[in-house]
Formats: sequence, C-alpha cells, structure tokens
Amino acid sequence: MRGLWLENNQINLRDDLAIPSNFDEALIKVRLAGICGTDLEMVKGYYPFTGVPGHEFVGEVVAVPAGASQGWVGRRVVGEINAVCGSCEQCRDGRPTHCEQRSVLGILNRGGVFAEYVSLPLENLQLVPEAVSDDAAVFAEPLAAALEIQQQVQIRPNDRVLVIGAGRLGQLIAQSLALTGCGLGVVARHEAQQHLLASRGIRILAEAEVQTWRWDVVVEATGAISGLALAKRALRPRGTLVLKSTYKGEVSLNLSPFVVDEVTVVGSRCGPFAPALRLLELGLVDTRPLISARFELKDGLAAFAEAARLGMMKVLVQCS
Amino acid sequence: MRGLWLENNQINLRDDLAIPSNFDEALIKVRLAGICGTDLEMVKGYYPFTGVPGHEFVGEVVAVPAGASQGWVGRRVVGEINAVCGSCEQCRDGRPTHCEQRSVLGILNRGGVFAEYVSLPLENLQLVPEAVSDDAAVFAEPLAAALEIQQQVQIRPNDRVLVIGAGRLGQLIAQSLALTGCGLGVVARHEAQQHLLASRGIRILAEAEVQTWRWDVVVEATGAISGLALAKRALRPRGTLVLKSTYKGEVSLNLSPFVVDEVTVVGSRCGPFAPALRLLELGLVDTRPLISARFELKDGLAAFAEAARLGMMKVLVQCS
Repeated sequence: MRGLWLENNQINLRDDLAIPSNFDEALIKVRLAGICGTDLEMVKGYYPFTGVPGHEFVGEVVAVPAGASQGWVGRRVVGEINAVCGSCEQCRDGRPTHCEQRSVLGILNRGGVFAEYVSLPLENLQLVPEAVSDDAAVFAEPLAAALEIQQQVQIRPNDRVLVIGAGRLGQLIAQSLALTGCGLGVVARHEAQQHLLASRGIRILAEAEVQTWRWDVVVEATGAISGLALAKRALRPRGTLVLKSTYKGEVSLNLSPFVVDEVTVVGSRCGPFAPALRLLELGLVDTRPLISARFELKDGLAAFAEAARLGMMKVLVQCS
Repeated sequence: MRGLWLENNQINLRDDLAIPSNFDEALIKVRLAGICGTDLEMVKGYYPFTGVPGHEFVGEVVAVPAGASQGWVGRRVVGEINAVCGSCEQCRDGRPTHCEQRSVLGILNRGGVFAEYVSLPLENLQLVPEAVSDDAAVFAEPLAAALEIQQQVQIRPNDRVLVIGAGRLGQLIAQSLALTGCGLGVVARHEAQQHLLASRGIRILAEAEVQTWRWDVVVEATGAISGLALAKRALRPRGTLVLKSTYKGEVSLNLSPFVVDEVTVVGSRCGPFAPALRLLELGLVDTRPLISARFELKDGLAAFAEAARLGMMKVLVQCS
C-alpha cells in the first residue's frame, strides 16, 4: 500500500508498504488524517520512531477479527490511539491510556494513519455519528485531548481561565473551555490565531495584558518555556496550571514559587473520544475554520512541509 | 530585650533590642521557640532577612491592643505566622496565607521569636489547650504545615503514600499521614530518623526498594533534586506529587514525563493551626522524641550550631 514512512528522521512516500495484518485487530481504510504538532516533532527527530506516522484520523472498517460482529464493516470510525495490554497495574486500576505496555498509533511501536490502511484493536474504535462529517471527525483525537483538561480539572463557571497558545490544539482547548461559561482569555500571538478566536467571540489578550497572580486556571499550550513562565506569573496562589504540551529536553526552573504559592500543576495528555464526538455532533465545536490546507496522500511530503509553516492550523491528508 | 539578630547573614546575640511596640498587635512573652530548616537557610543567606529570626513558638500574652478583651492576657498561645492585610484579592478570596502584602513572622518584614518578646495581630493567635505542654505546642506550626498536605490533597485510606525525607518536617508528615490509615512508606536515610519512624510502627524503605510507577501520592520533603527525581519515579501515572520543600535556585528538569504520565504536582506551605493543636491535645502526634536538644536564649548561637549538625531533629530555645 501507499503511505508515508519515517526512519532516521527522514520521511518518505512509499508505495511498497505491507497492509497491516494483525488478525486480532480491525483493519481500517483511512479516509482522512490530520497532521499534529507531535508528528512534526517526530520528523524533526524529537522522538525516535520508525514506521508510518500519524494518529489523527477518520476511516472505514474493512475487516474485523474472526468472531467479531460483521456489523462494524463499512462503518465510519475514529480511534483511541493507545492500544493496551489490559493486565498491567495501570490497566487494572482503570488508567488504560497509561498502560505500561501500551503501543501508541503512529507514535510508539505501532504504525499510524498516513497510509491507505491502518489496524487497531476493535475496542479502540468509536463509531462516528452520521451528522459528523469526515472533516469534523478527523478532529476527534485532538478535541479529546483538549477535553482531557476538564476530565482532570473541574472548571467552575465562575473561574478565570487563561489559555496560553492558540495553535492547533490551543484553538480546540479555547473552544471547549468557552462552553463552560468560565471567564476565558487566550494569549494568541499570530493574527490568524486571533482571527479564529475572535470569530468565536473569545477574548484575546496580549502577553503584556496578562495580570499577575490573577487567573484561577492557566493552560499552557505553547510548549515553550516562555509560555510556562507567563503561565506561572498569571496564576493566582493555589491556582491550577495545566501543562498541555511537552517541553524539549531539560528545562531550567525555579520551583520555589510553585511551593510558596501552593500551585497545582497538572500534566495532561490523551482524552476521552465519546464527549469529543458528542460536541462535534452537536455542532458546539467548529473545526471547519481550523483547516488550513488539504493534500492527497501522494503529496503527503508537501502536506508536512505546509504544516510546518508558521501560523498554519490543521493540514489534512486524504488517504483514500 | 535579649534576642538573636540576623543581619548580612550574620547571626548575633544582642541584649539591646527594643521590645516590639505595635499598639495594634498583641505582645507575647516567648516561652519556647523551635529552630526550623528555614531558619538555618536564612542564616546561610538563602533568604535576605534582617531582624530577629524564628517562627515556631509558644508564648504567653502580656498585652493586647486597646479595646481588645483582657481575657487574652496571661494565656498561652501559638501563632499563625502570616500577618495579612485583609483587603487584597487573595485575602478577600479566602487565601489569607497568600496575602499579597503579608509579613511573615521571622521570615519577611516582621521580627520573629528568638527573643524575649514578639508581637502578632490578635487574630493570628490560637489558645493552647491545657493538656498540650509547651514542648508539644512549639510544634504547632510545623505540624500545621504537615497537615496542609491533607488540606490540599485528599488522602484516601486505600492510597499508597510515600514520604521521601524524614527530617524535622518529614517526621511530622509521616506521623500525621499514618493517622489516615493509608499504606504509608517513608524513605529515611539516617539511622536516627529510621529509629523514630520504627518506634511509631511506620514502614521504612531504602531508596533501592522504592518501586517505579507505584505510589498514589508521593510527598517530597528533602528539598534535594535527587529526592524530586526519586519522587517522580515512584509516582504512578495520574498520581499526586506534593512538594513540601523549596529547592535552592534553578532546577534542571525534564517536564515531559510529568505531562505524559499526567502527574499532578502540588506545592504545599503553611497549614492550619487548629487541627494541629487538636492532634497534639489528643496525643495522636508525639513530638517528645523529636526534641534533640534544648538551649537557653543566651546560648542561642550554640543552639543554631547544634541544629545545623547532620541528623539533628528539633532544637528548642527557652526564651523566657
């Protein structure tokens, strides 16, 4: 089959890839896949990975494991990206996304979605409601990641919530947090980002406008150390700082203010798909303006180049 | 009056200090004061402070502001160390220990307790129950700090809780956490520390015995970066790491595992006095074995030297 292949930090288009043949998993024909910041960082070599990258997708089930309901075949699905063992302590204790033996779609020990076909355990799949277009469904995974914030931290309607960073993920975070009725502000550097937020009526702040010791909850979504410093400064004592991005390598940090101000810091990663699909079905999150460009799989390398340009939002790849 | 005086990282005994004369505060004759890790660090110059150091004390009220009840006079008291404005945003929002204009007893813009007399706002004082000896009451402040952990984080009886560090504060943390019935383990390096824990039936672990990804809650109470690394390793995904010490200067840290494992980090500082006094009154926390040495105020410098010796627990100074 055709697909993108990442090896030694080189990404190539290949036509000789084997169709996944895990007989205990569902085989899915990928319809549409999205390029995420993690994909771009993998290409830059920040994570070691060999194989087909990509983990945001919507596809159609073409085969199921023996004994499974044939009702799945032909259905549109999205998929939870962590494939888990079910028997380690994390799985048994109800934290499957933290499975100690997990593989992660297009990220860790498992081929991803920038290809014609992908396989995933049937239990990872979620049917896409009729009313959710492919263009919307392909955002289910990053929207789930945005919703993980509210899965972890209670956002009270009366809270002042600051989001720092308004890129691909930051936009979905801002849209989902706005639904809580909280006092939301977003620090967005680029004009295109500001425009998208303004069109949703979301308040935009310049960095210089961010008050010190003021915000109940701050979400850091830039992945830059300057964003983290701004977040700490903005947060009120005993407030909650959500880390929604990873930081490259070692970071130099004065931890004393975190202790003195009794701050809570919460790391946040993958989230729940079902509520993401519900919000998309209800039309409460609008993904259309977040699509910057669209490429065929044969032009996948150009898609990656385009996605890496500053200020780009979501670049989609039509895989079949 | 007599007292210790800290200036330019030099600590001296002086007999010419003015008795505090804040007419809107209570004047307290200090009976007993305790030397804390923070005091030792101030002498080393880690915090800039000029004045009488010390914030752990039990004393007797000798004068109250005009108009206040004379019933206070002659009573034994301990005192909340943060003196607050009552009108800033933090005070108004119910976080008085985070008052933006606060002074802190013997730490920030306010003379402390290694002297014959000290003054504090009346609202900071807590009466000491009859059954609580001076030797116990002097631990009210650090025990309150230990209890701040449970004020911030729900410790479930079924939780596995690891405390790293078993010094002055670590011992009080361990004793108070043991009362929850949780599965408690303490990493204690020094034999004297281990002995104290063993006498309370508290489980001691060597660093090498600490399992990876295992503990629901980990309390870091060493203030050393090696303790922080051990804490992160021990913590299960989505677990809670309580930072109960500050770290000197900038710390180099890889934050990505905190995000990937969705860890919650909680900074923890000053705590509630009333429950500390209740536990002391009920005899549920035993402070007697934690007293390493006792000095007269005239020998205060020797007291500080003794407290700085490795493995020393609480050194007390009899101030009047």
